[in-house]
Amino acid sequence: MPILALFAAPAGDWAEWEAPLGAAFAAAGLDVRLVTDADPAAVDYLIYAPPGTVSDFSPFTRAKAVLSLWAGVERIVGNASLTQPLCRMVDPGMTGHMVSYVAGHVLRHHLGMDRHLKRNAPVWDQTPPPHPSDRPVAVLGLGELGRACAAAIAALGFPVTGWARTAKALPFPTDHGEDGLRRVLGGADIVVTLLPRTAETENLLDARRLGWLRQGAVVINPGRGALIDEDALLAALDSGRLGHATLDVFRQEPLPPGHPFWTHPRVTVTPHIAANTHPPTASGVVAENIRRGEAGEPFLYLVDRARAY
Amino acid sequence: MPILALFAAPAGDWAEWEAPLGAAFAAAGLDVRLVTDADPAAVDYLIYAPPGTVSDFSPFTRAKAVLSLWAGVERIVGNASLTQPLCRMVDPGMTGHMVSYVAGHVLRHHLGMDRHLKRNAPVWDQTPPPHPSDRPVAVLGLGELGRACAAAIAALGFPVTGWARTAKALPFPTDHGEDGLRRVLGGADIVVTLLPRTAETENLLDARRLGWLRQGAVVINPGRGALIDEDALLAALDSGRLGHATLDVFRQEPLPPGHPFWTHPRVTVTPHIAANTHPPTASGVVAENIRRGEAGEPFLYLVDRARAY
Repeated sequence: MPILALFAAPAGDWAEWEAPLGAAFAAAGLDVRLVTDADPAAVDYLIYAPPGTVSDFSPFTRAKAVLSLWAGVERIVGNASLTQPLCRMVDPGMTGHMVSYVAGHVLRHHLGMDRHLKRNAPVWDQTPPPHPSDRPVAVLGLGELGRACAAAIAALGFPVTGWARTAKALPFPTDHGEDGLRRVLGGADIVVTLLPRTAETENLLDARRLGWLRQGAVVINPGRGALIDEDALLAALDSGRLGHATLDVFRQEPLPPGHPFWTHPRVTVTPHIAANTHPPTASGVVAENIRRGEAGEPFLYLVDRARAY
Repeated sequence: MPILALFAAPAGDWAEWEAPLGAAFAAAGLDVRLVTDADPAAVDYLIYAPPGTVSDFSPFTRAKAVLSLWAGVERIVGNASLTQPLCRMVDPGMTGHMVSYVAGHVLRHHLGMDRHLKRNAPVWDQTPPPHPSDRPVAVLGLGELGRACAAAIAALGFPVTGWARTAKALPFPTDHGEDGLRRVLGGADIVVTLLPRTAETENLLDARRLGWLRQGAVVINPGRGALIDEDALLAALDSGRLGHATLDVFRQEPLPPGHPFWTHPRVTVTPHIAANTHPPTASGVVAENIRRGEAGEPFLYLVDRARAY
């Protein structure tokens, strides 16, 4: 009897996922029936992305797991009806997208690209950027994405310091805790925020901590909008403490047309495109977790409900 | 008796080089007297950058070598009075600058950054770029700089093919010769030109070869202006064959204010800033070559006069 998997992501996502999921199940030797509608009591696995087609998970009495297609699970982890194991997505393909975005915008700010792209008149100003080895970068958040981005930036020759709430041993320098955050923010020209959204990371960059930045530092936020206090960010830009903010994520998405970020001369808005899931690789992760579930092995990337990620 | 080294680069470069060269000589244990003026017959080594303070090298009868501070030697290699060994600069610090520039502009074009930077009105268009693994990049020229750039782009997840006139065995796919150039140009979304300027590379990208590009391909030229036929490039941009050209080097520098590149909507001009020599590391290379010259060992990066680089 085939394994019944309910595709509970938005209907608009089906066209993008049907073929890669089918291919991944076949490659893993799994007999999965993938459907967009089913009797809840018969479903073995739910494949989920917000806002999704399921909000009450209680009728899914047989389901062994809810497998998120998104890395961030803040829109589902607090759902009281969700008592099944919840796995977030750690997609090697998404990591490639995120590394591109972060390395690209770090290099853009390092090289001062904007003045060449926005120039209206011929200017031959050969003032060079510093050498990458003289351009310290901080990466806040050392999960899969933060680590991969930090490693890529370090490989390009930038001195990178990673920061997390707790100490980590990684192949590049790291710091941790509130004192460490002060040191890391004060020691970097470019700061990348790549933490999950949790109660602890809400407003991680508030007015006080933005005040620890070097004069003219740049913040790149491809993590979550809630990591930054928006009013404090605008104030730090206007005071000159913050030189530029490149933001991919916002408290409200799409970013409303009247929001000051759209028109601020030292804010770059990108429309939540940094971390695209890559269906071929992400489908392999879904298939592997179904294989594990069927074999009674521990799931990959199981969400810790206490930490909420 | 100290070794006499004549700083024959432009006078304006002296402030930038005096201290790092002195430090490198001291670190190498060399007793070098570094001067900006000397009796030619007493000079042991010339340290040169164009346009330089020496154009007739024949009175330097004692000089063991002319050590270029520039990677490109096309402005000096044809000087008939220069019979001393000529060494070009292969500066690990310059490599870091060039890798930043090339990786930065590859990522810029990959991510479609320009539309976010030049946007005048709020647009929330989440069309993602392809995954880096679906964005082939070609690097033409596989010297120190080309190899380092190709390796960095490959490490970011892009499929990279390198091209050189003759076959090379490298840790990424390569092709060579005229047939290989056709294959490489036809197989890439982004083409980086990093060849030296020689009689063979003049107009490497002419009208015929630009016609081999994929529709909408991007060319990034941080190599030498003469690698590209400018009129053919403009025609390829206007026909749509070429999607964008990001150019750091030009036949005439500074690029004249009236040149069409300044105003073409699909040309980005950067003012020859991709490959900055990094005086601390380059000075170490100069010191090592003086050490070698004094010890009778072969020089590093000796220019082959027949190949002219």
